[in-house]
Amino acid sequence: MPSPTRSISEPSKVLVFGAGNFGSCLADHLGDSDHDVYLWSRQGEVVESLNKTHRNPMYLKDHHFSTNITAVGPELPGETLINEMDVLLFAIPTQFLRENLEKLRLYLNKEKHPLLIFVNKGIEIGTHALTLEIITDTCGAGIAKAATFISGPSFAKESKICNLTCLLVVQRQPTSVSVTSFTDSEAQRAAILFHQPHFRCYTGSDPIGTELAGALKNVYAIAAGAADGLGFENNTRAMIITRGLAEMTRIGTAYGADPLTFLGLAGVGDLFMSCSSPTSRNYSVGFRLGKGESLDSIINNLGSVAEGVTTAKGVKMILDELGIKARIATTVIYEETIIPGKDIQAAVRELLELPSSKEIDLPSATGGPAKQLMKKLGLD
Amino acid sequence: MPSPTRSISEPSKVLVFGAGNFGSCLADHLGDSDHDVYLWSRQGEVVESLNKTHRNPMYLKDHHFSTNITAVGPELPGETLINEMDVLLFAIPTQFLRENLEKLRLYLNKEKHPLLIFVNKGIEIGTHALTLEIITDTCGAGIAKAATFISGPSFAKESKICNLTCLLVVQRQPTSVSVTSFTDSEAQRAAILFHQPHFRCYTGSDPIGTELAGALKNVYAIAAGAADGLGFENNTRAMIITRGLAEMTRIGTAYGADPLTFLGLAGVGDLFMSCSSPTSRNYSVGFRLGKGESLDSIINNLGSVAEGVTTAKGVKMILDELGIKARIATTVIYEETIIPGKDIQAAVRELLELPSSKEIDLPSATGGPAKQLMKKLGLD
Repeated sequence: MPSPTRSISEPSKVLVFGAGNFGSCLADHLGDSDHDVYLWSRQGEVVESLNKTHRNPMYLKDHHFSTNITAVGPELPGETLINEMDVLLFAIPTQFLRENLEKLRLYLNKEKHPLLIFVNKGIEIGTHALTLEIITDTCGAGIAKAATFISGPSFAKESKICNLTCLLVVQRQPTSVSVTSFTDSEAQRAAILFHQPHFRCYTGSDPIGTELAGALKNVYAIAAGAADGLGFENNTRAMIITRGLAEMTRIGTAYGADPLTFLGLAGVGDLFMSCSSPTSRNYSVGFRLGKGESLDSIINNLGSVAEGVTTAKGVKMILDELGIKARIATTVIYEETIIPGKDIQAAVRELLELPSSKEIDLPSATGGPAKQLMKKLGLD
Repeated sequence: MPSPTRSISEPSKVLVFGAGNFGSCLADHLGDSDHDVYLWSRQGEVVESLNKTHRNPMYLKDHHFSTNITAVGPELPGETLINEMDVLLFAIPTQFLRENLEKLRLYLNKEKHPLLIFVNKGIEIGTHALTLEIITDTCGAGIAKAATFISGPSFAKESKICNLTCLLVVQRQPTSVSVTSFTDSEAQRAAILFHQPHFRCYTGSDPIGTELAGALKNVYAIAAGAADGLGFENNTRAMIITRGLAEMTRIGTAYGADPLTFLGLAGVGDLFMSCSSPTSRNYSVGFRLGKGESLDSIINNLGSVAEGVTTAKGVKMILDELGIKARIATTVIYEETIIPGKDIQAAVRELLELPSSKEIDLPSATGGPAKQLMKKLGLD
């Protein structure tokens, strides 16, 4: 099949949607790699500041951004700019993706469109759709099949404050990510665009597994934080990471993902970072629950909800639908919400009192939700 | 197939070979669980001290051991004691296993022998045999098929000093391990023997993968230490763990192991602990190499060789035999030894300059060494 995306010139023209933490950081990385970068922000002051002083007043405030970045906005870019681009990179939250794609799809030529890269994570509230499904619904199966997804341990956080990991990328500390797509050639093109000695790209072909891993890991980061908050030590965290990984793989396999995806950067790599970073929002929600604080008080204090808390509802719906046992996840997700602080000691005791069992116990009948999505994509 | 091992009474009679760190710690755990434990040491003073004061003068010195432990030795136990036992647990280094099994096999009834549990790790120098192969060579295929192997993040270290992890087990901090055997019923019996709320056992059926993971992870612990010694940060360690895991899985699959084993406690669980524990010997060898110290100086100072250094030779032989690419491992294992400190900066640069590649790239023709071993075991 010929590539549905236009050939990429070197250096490429890249339009990044979203000047948050991820978007700014990735725009800077691409600018540093001599690409011609346009960065869309829906905030006029951010656009003005980036263009005048190369600083983002909201994120990575102390950083002088690449002069190869031109900020655009606050209106969503129109047909002319979109059609000049080799690459469109979406770094906007999952919950706002559908509405933006609804507008942008009108400008996309289905035969020869820019390379599309998505770096958002999580499950859409209400529909519990993965990003792949949102793309299929809005832009059609052809565009969704060619879409690429970047995930990995450098994308562990969704904080409003500058996150450490983005700083590391900006400081050129070695980092690696997984770049997945149903179309191998597209994954390779996205990998080549981003790849640098300090930003290593590895390709894969299981975007469903990659997306699920990114959503599920938040729940286990809460569990790891809670265990630390309760005073358990390093080997308990290793246990939560490893047993959480076995659970994630079981859920993923039941959903229809490749179990080996969970062995990669988007799986264990991201899980390890999220469960080991005291600055991660999900971890700190868990830590404070473990210390006995109530979820309401934590959310009030954090000023916004950690992704793991919103994802939990979507995960619960998926677990209910799959009928799969996932004891750590269901301990964290209690009655459509996160477990209250007062019960956490009892919940841990209950988990520890479970009998010995098989370590990697993958379901034999697998793939319900993925099969439906593959059908939508014409890949069944 | 009827179980080749005798039925286990509750509480059981367990003979632990080796009163080192692991052996003492596991004997204590089993004693605490009300089993009747015999602990063999080849040092008369250890036997005397344990029986008189319930203290081990060499390991976990401050700990008062379970009064359910009777120390025996310094001579290897004979036929009478062996035949009274429900369980034999081997906690002696891989390099001394063959000679001890040669003596003990004479006392084992092949039809109804005790449950055999092995907790040693590593590859035999010279033969580069796994423990499973040593058991097959000395005791025969029947006993090897029924043998069980315990591995996981609580067994990360082989230090002469009391290790943190063993202290955690002794202090009843939650820990979990993988219990594997070619015979499911035997793995389940070993799991039931050890399982407690604070010592959780998960069963598996891939002892080859479990053993390989335990040997290979040492090499990556050296790499993780070296990266930290060179001043790289947390996401670089996450990268070494994740990319190391992909390499381990590739090597394991080429060897004939199940790739999913590397997703478990014996794989990523143990790797995570070994790469994150500054007290781990392999990690500290790497850390000091990263700081520019020579391997000779480190070994002189440590007083003994870290397992990763001896394992490296065996791993190199296996890699050469399999013809598999494993860039992190071969960077650590340089010309049949560990990479000298002076080259480590250049070696890291070389690794980082590799082009983008597939993330999980498993070989298609797999299983050479495992096939030979399975043939020896009559399992082909």
